[in-house]
Amino acid sequence: MDSRPIGVFDSGIGGLTVLKELALQFPHESFLYLGDTARLPYGSKSAHTIRKYSEQNIQFLKRLDVKAIVIACNTASTQVPEPELEGLPIYNVIGPGAQRALEVSHSKRIGVLGTRATINSKAYSHKIMDLDPSASVIDQACPLFVPLAEEGWDSDPVTNLIVFRYLSQILQHSIDTLILGCTHYPLLKNSIARVTGSSIELVDSGEAIARWLERDFSKNRLGRNANSSHQKIEIMTTDSSAHFTEMALKILKPVKADEFKVVDLN
Amino acid sequence: MDSRPIGVFDSGIGGLTVLKELALQFPHESFLYLGDTARLPYGSKSAHTIRKYSEQNIQFLKRLDVKAIVIACNTASTQVPEPELEGLPIYNVIGPGAQRALEVSHSKRIGVLGTRATINSKAYSHKIMDLDPSASVIDQACPLFVPLAEEGWDSDPVTNLIVFRYLSQILQHSIDTLILGCTHYPLLKNSIARVTGSSIELVDSGEAIARWLERDFSKNRLGRNANSSHQKIEIMTTDSSAHFTEMALKILKPVKADEFKVVDLN
Repeated sequence: MDSRPIGVFDSGIGGLTVLKELALQFPHESFLYLGDTARLPYGSKSAHTIRKYSEQNIQFLKRLDVKAIVIACNTASTQVPEPELEGLPIYNVIGPGAQRALEVSHSKRIGVLGTRATINSKAYSHKIMDLDPSASVIDQACPLFVPLAEEGWDSDPVTNLIVFRYLSQILQHSIDTLILGCTHYPLLKNSIARVTGSSIELVDSGEAIARWLERDFSKNRLGRNANSSHQKIEIMTTDSSAHFTEMALKILKPVKADEFKVVDLN
Repeated sequence: MDSRPIGVFDSGIGGLTVLKELALQFPHESFLYLGDTARLPYGSKSAHTIRKYSEQNIQFLKRLDVKAIVIACNTASTQVPEPELEGLPIYNVIGPGAQRALEVSHSKRIGVLGTRATINSKAYSHKIMDLDPSASVIDQACPLFVPLAEEGWDSDPVTNLIVFRYLSQILQHSIDTLILGCTHYPLLKNSIARVTGSSIELVDSGEAIARWLERDFSKNRLGRNANSSHQKIEIMTTDSSAHFTEMALKILKPVKADEFKVVDLN
């Protein structure tokens, strides 16, 4: 048993799709969420800068005595491959997403969508090929998806058009599975599904990482909270923004956060 | 006479539209440009964070011995109203843009487009009303314009559609002048002009601030470089990115930068 909370971090709002999934799957676990909104987005930044910011976020959560850290941000995940840092278990979304895609794919032709940094890192391609060298991966950077999701235009005709634009090439490769390789993208799932149709399975990070956590809880690699525990969710951001809070409440629904506060990482 | 360079800073790529204008207008002046690409964009951040980042950028350029600083970023400009800091002249784009809009407007019905932070600050509205209390100002935040410009979709049907979406309300107020209150927006000028038509005058920050600098050179408030001087342009960013360099070369054309380098602000 371990009553400490699980830390979750993201560059901003997108990781709340992961937090929501985890909070629903593990109703007795508590969570500390850190959104680095003062420095978002990570997806347009260099590998070096993304690693530096991620380490600062991890150190910050470590000081708050979390029992594990989930890197909800795909872009940050590409730069933190380690399964633990100084004894603290670290879960990044790349492995779970790659494994889940291979589980659901029949043709082993897998598409990956992500930020420019995530796609440039080739993290998903490498992970998928490591797990199954017979698979083939086609990827596509979609830099406008994050701002569209942040703007809240999730089922808008403009969004459908932009989704179509980004996906038209990838869809010519007869993929049967598509990894939504950015935590913001589940917010655009309706528009994406409208373009991909029902024959392509969409894999999202929140569901995939929840399966990994459940596996580690079952194997006692990670201590569970007592079944009687009341779930506590605290959301911290590095910048204040009414727009963020409003979007956060909308994304998390029906999950409720106990506290919102602004923190300084230094 | 003053042979020191002029410092120009922006959150990223957008301020290059201002740098280009200044470099063409003042062919004997040298420029040090700082793009804070590791922390861009500023437009979605809080006033407090924007002020903090702006001060760090100013201190950095001051240490490089510039004779004046142009804050090319509209969002940063809203948080630095001072005309000088520790004796160093500071030019922000709000005053020049507001004044220019009032000069070209007949009806004194003026529209302002900007990032969420710029519009929330009401900096343009207040400045315009200070200069002419009979004027009326209608503003609109356009959070998707920056990512569209950064993606390079400057004359794309999708961009036309998004421009139409953001502008449809503002256009019902019979404005005759529209301030492009973000240095990225001139990159979308074709799409914006297609929606506004020829009866609305577009005011952009680069042209407006160049007029102010010329006024201060003429009045000897600012020393000119010798007429024989060779223009030197150095571009510094806080993060490395091949995409940035590629976009920078495209935006600056026909102006040529002598050097690109990555710097650390600390």
